[in-house]
Amino acid sequence: MTTQPRLRGSAGPAGPATPSPGARVVLRPLTQQDVRITGGFWAQRQAVNRAASLDLGYERLRSAGNLDNLRIAAGDLSGEVRGPVFMDSDVYKWLEAAAWEYGRAPDPGLLGRIREVSVVVASAQAEDGYLASVQQVRYEGKRYTDLPHSHEHYCAGHLFQAAVAQARCTPDRTLLETATRLADHLVATFGPGRNEEVDGHPIVETALVELFRETGRQEYLDLASWFVEARGRGSTARHGEAPTYFCDRLRVRDATSVEGHAVRAVYLRAGAADVAAETGDADLQAALGRQWEAMTNEKMYLTGGLGSRWDLEQFGDPYELPPDRAYAETCAAIGSIQWAWRMLLSSGDPRYADLIERTLYNAVLPGMSLSGTEYFYVNTLHLRDDSHPDDERSPALGRQGWFNVACCPPNVMRLLASLDTYLATRSDRGVQVHQFATGTVEAGEVCISLATDYPWQGEVRIEVLASGDAPWELALRIPQWAEGATVTHGGLPADVRPGEYARIHRSWSGGDVVVLSLPLATRLVRPHPRMDAVRDCIAMERGPLVYCLEASDVPEEVAVDDVRIRVHEAAAARPEHCNDLLGGVTILTTRLCVLDDASTEPYRAVTADAEAQGRASPGPLELQLIPYYAWGNRTPGAMRIWLPQDANGPERASRA
Amino acid sequence: MTTQPRLRGSAGPAGPATPSPGARVVLRPLTQQDVRITGGFWAQRQAVNRAASLDLGYERLRSAGNLDNLRIAAGDLSGEVRGPVFMDSDVYKWLEAAAWEYGRAPDPGLLGRIREVSVVVASAQAEDGYLASVQQVRYEGKRYTDLPHSHEHYCAGHLFQAAVAQARCTPDRTLLETATRLADHLVATFGPGRNEEVDGHPIVETALVELFRETGRQEYLDLASWFVEARGRGSTARHGEAPTYFCDRLRVRDATSVEGHAVRAVYLRAGAADVAAETGDADLQAALGRQWEAMTNEKMYLTGGLGSRWDLEQFGDPYELPPDRAYAETCAAIGSIQWAWRMLLSSGDPRYADLIERTLYNAVLPGMSLSGTEYFYVNTLHLRDDSHPDDERSPALGRQGWFNVACCPPNVMRLLASLDTYLATRSDRGVQVHQFATGTVEAGEVCISLATDYPWQGEVRIEVLASGDAPWELALRIPQWAEGATVTHGGLPADVRPGEYARIHRSWSGGDVVVLSLPLATRLVRPHPRMDAVRDCIAMERGPLVYCLEASDVPEEVAVDDVRIRVHEAAAARPEHCNDLLGGVTILTTRLCVLDDASTEPYRAVTADAEAQGRASPGPLELQLIPYYAWGNRTPGAMRIWLPQDANGPERASRA
Repeated sequence: MTTQPRLRGSAGPAGPATPSPGARVVLRPLTQQDVRITGGFWAQRQAVNRAASLDLGYERLRSAGNLDNLRIAAGDLSGEVRGPVFMDSDVYKWLEAAAWEYGRAPDPGLLGRIREVSVVVASAQAEDGYLASVQQVRYEGKRYTDLPHSHEHYCAGHLFQAAVAQARCTPDRTLLETATRLADHLVATFGPGRNEEVDGHPIVETALVELFRETGRQEYLDLASWFVEARGRGSTARHGEAPTYFCDRLRVRDATSVEGHAVRAVYLRAGAADVAAETGDADLQAALGRQWEAMTNEKMYLTGGLGSRWDLEQFGDPYELPPDRAYAETCAAIGSIQWAWRMLLSSGDPRYADLIERTLYNAVLPGMSLSGTEYFYVNTLHLRDDSHPDDERSPALGRQGWFNVACCPPNVMRLLASLDTYLATRSDRGVQVHQFATGTVEAGEVCISLATDYPWQGEVRIEVLASGDAPWELALRIPQWAEGATVTHGGLPADVRPGEYARIHRSWSGGDVVVLSLPLATRLVRPHPRMDAVRDCIAMERGPLVYCLEASDVPEEVAVDDVRIRVHEAAAARPEHCNDLLGGVTILTTRLCVLDDASTEPYRAVTADAEAQGRASPGPLELQLIPYYAWGNRTPGAMRIWLPQDANGPERASRA
Repeated sequence: MTTQPRLRGSAGPAGPATPSPGARVVLRPLTQQDVRITGGFWAQRQAVNRAASLDLGYERLRSAGNLDNLRIAAGDLSGEVRGPVFMDSDVYKWLEAAAWEYGRAPDPGLLGRIREVSVVVASAQAEDGYLASVQQVRYEGKRYTDLPHSHEHYCAGHLFQAAVAQARCTPDRTLLETATRLADHLVATFGPGRNEEVDGHPIVETALVELFRETGRQEYLDLASWFVEARGRGSTARHGEAPTYFCDRLRVRDATSVEGHAVRAVYLRAGAADVAAETGDADLQAALGRQWEAMTNEKMYLTGGLGSRWDLEQFGDPYELPPDRAYAETCAAIGSIQWAWRMLLSSGDPRYADLIERTLYNAVLPGMSLSGTEYFYVNTLHLRDDSHPDDERSPALGRQGWFNVACCPPNVMRLLASLDTYLATRSDRGVQVHQFATGTVEAGEVCISLATDYPWQGEVRIEVLASGDAPWELALRIPQWAEGATVTHGGLPADVRPGEYARIHRSWSGGDVVVLSLPLATRLVRPHPRMDAVRDCIAMERGPLVYCLEASDVPEEVAVDDVRIRVHEAAAARPEHCNDLLGGVTILTTRLCVLDDASTEPYRAVTADAEAQGRASPGPLELQLIPYYAWGNRTPGAMRIWLPQDANGPERASRA
């Protein structure tokens, strides 16, 4: 009988979504002190987030009126509140980001700002705990009269999340006190036999579970559970708009896919997953697994982006995934990661970690400029040369410094500030590495370091810095795409299958080295045959990154929309790392054709005479593709992820 | 020197958009008495319109609250007004339809209803002429405070159009009196130095011009002209939403294409064309011609449908034409016909008549059920098997008996009731036949009859019933698609070129016969290479009709979305007329393949191994396609106009 490894987590600040000891999960998160990103790709993004984005956010909260709204509600300032009803939530997301960031690296200046803003928040709270500044001032006296639209629970949820982060990472407890007072008010007001309506915009569910985890107050979990179960009873219907939009057409456990407003749908699932884990509800967990599978099979962009309709920011029908009208809101990607993370904990299934990776690199990161100060709300997969912007969200406008509806920027901030905790987990068997970054992972007596140039290089060197005597398992996620990946430990090969964990169960000593080698060959991808909008197109990927062709990399006389791809040429694309380009990216250089078709005729008779139908030019151009996340950081212009195949090439992928 | 033909129009009831004698036009409309559809395809649709649709409309105006709103505004009824701010406009469109219908065939019962409703309208008018029932009651005392959204001019415009129709076609003048009082109020209120704002929804422009034509009141034309010129000055901007949406980003004469809300954009152009014709503004006419060309080249569906975004019912970017999310509002198609008709009159260019035909059959007619009692608001080109309806406009719901926003149904009614006048025009040279239907055309001393089974048969027999002594020209539109068309007169062939008029200038005698023969071969059509959403797809047409594949015609075990087309098989499609199907339609029967791809993998590695990538089944099915206008009249189910090409067929059209 071997000694059990001691893999307990530390008492350090837990990350977001940390299940209670009794929760029905197979993997356990590690604390922010236990998992640290110390270098490489994500460390650079986190540094920008701290140095530039958090300052920007603070200034915007001041200038856009968010803080003033709270001061007006507190009676400390006179005037009209500004902005949409959910203005407070931006304050809370910023506070949450600042708290996680303080947890990563304490700093008195940051703490000062956290305290300053937290006091402003607390001052606006009503005597009985109610808090929603715009509601308090603009609709004075009217509470919960239009919950589908008023976002009162939505704001509360973001407050709870910020309060939990603050309690876990800072010496301040101001926000936790405000949050529990508001949560107590909600408990007293909502639930069976009391007010039985639900908020149009979920988030309060996952937030209440986290507040339960932080405080041990069972009634918060009970209310979260009730809010999840109350969906699908049509309580939103009497406020107009279809219940689909509000996640209120079906009970969560009866749904077979996702529908309606994308952000709301995934936030709700994250909350439901939390409830299921804490209540041990295996049926609900299974239902969520089926929904996730349907979503990823039929309603997800190649980037991991979610939501294909601008109209009400909704999911479309299955396979309705237009690249040019992709909504793929940055917030939906973040919610998708929150949901996947909870599914990963409860199942240990690496597909969830695969999706977290895809989404981080290709659906969240594109939402923030390299400078950290400009944002995309909508993450399109295709921008035409002559796209006309008519909305603050239009990709044709380029990234924006802030938005009237400013949900996305502080959401990116809070995710980047808490990113470390998504890297690895522990279980009774050992340590699981889900994401690849340079850093350290501790779990009780075990400590390992990771060193990698990922995503530019495929090698990840894991060194055991400390280990107890008992054997334990090191599990390394092998991405689904990583055909040919290898893992060696002490010169010995491990069993490796893409889409599974490579598991090495043994005794370890300090200095032991494991080398994971992921092949970063250029990959060509084609869509499911029902994905009409990108029929006969090819996309290029390398490692976890989706690539795109951007106008800045195309000669002025060539329209991006006229570029055509040939499989055999693209398969031979050359990767090259350019330190001076876009903060340092690996580009893919390949020969691409340009269509020569000057006719403006929109609809043409099909004839056997291919000559008359427009051909690719005979001399292909050598062009470079860049990682999609880095687009929109140069002169604004056209961009495509999916490139149409050249009709006249010597071969082509099956169009199915 | 020959005698001039006497081709004056009669004094009968002029149709919609009848330019004044001095207007800058090259073609002149004929009156409803001069042009009569007496049999065939359109007569059947008109009979249904009269027998079923007009009754339905009257009942809906009663039950949906439109008439009650007016009674409440009049003080004859108490209670709250119902519905959106533009409820009155549905009343006016119905009144207009009823008036044209009365002009076609007078009937005391119909006149009674017209008078009853007209009196209700008149009773709601304020002392100073103002009239907008919802505004009067719901926002009492507040006029023109939010013109971009309030639709006050929009309602006025529809009233003017109804009043003109009533004055032209019925013995009643009630509405004309109401209309001129309101128009006088507008003249007193709006214009330079007075209120300089414009309504968010155009229609008042073309309506004021028609009121000018009917009454001779120059100030109505002046105000219409001013409303057109006032666009693009940003007056709508202070009411929120981008000026693009309100046709207010650019001056009408500076625009190079269409943008924003599709119905508004084309209604405005129809009005601008009227203004240009009446004021002799050649620059404006040229600008409108350029915009029309850009629209038809880059922003129009194969059906003639307009508007590719559900989001704000807008035009998309050039070539953004998704079939599954086509908006193609029935009203936009009607507005497109109104615009094209005015361009046809001013230019004599048959391309405008070509588009009227395409739009009538494939973008207006699909909006009404064969029964005349159910409607599509949105005319999609693709409905998936598993489409989830979440809106009264969702095609997946099937046609609806009415809508909360009920603009489309009465719009179809008024167009069908006035359709006769779109068939032919006169000029100093002779008579022009633009559309093919069984009926008679008179122009002064000239009278001809047309007999045809079009669109099922391609032969149109034109007989001269009467003619003066002077020679005159018979001009027959040869559709752009009609390669191989012939025209004979007295056994002699005429010069025929598709996309032009076949012109026969001669002396005519009663009994002379001209035979136009249009080849109705099945045509295969492919899209412009930039039309991403239907890349590698083929559509089928026959004559003026676009065809589609509907689930009702596909075995239950086959998904419409899995059907694949092979060019050589589809080109051999067999037409067959089925009298018992869908009111009598010619179907196209062809062999189609079914894709065999059970994988749910959304994104797949491109490999050289085509076998692994899903193939069409070896044994093609024999399936029938139906005219698109007739879809949605059986069991609700999937439908496609654009069919993906089979990748494994022996040949294929160039994918460009």
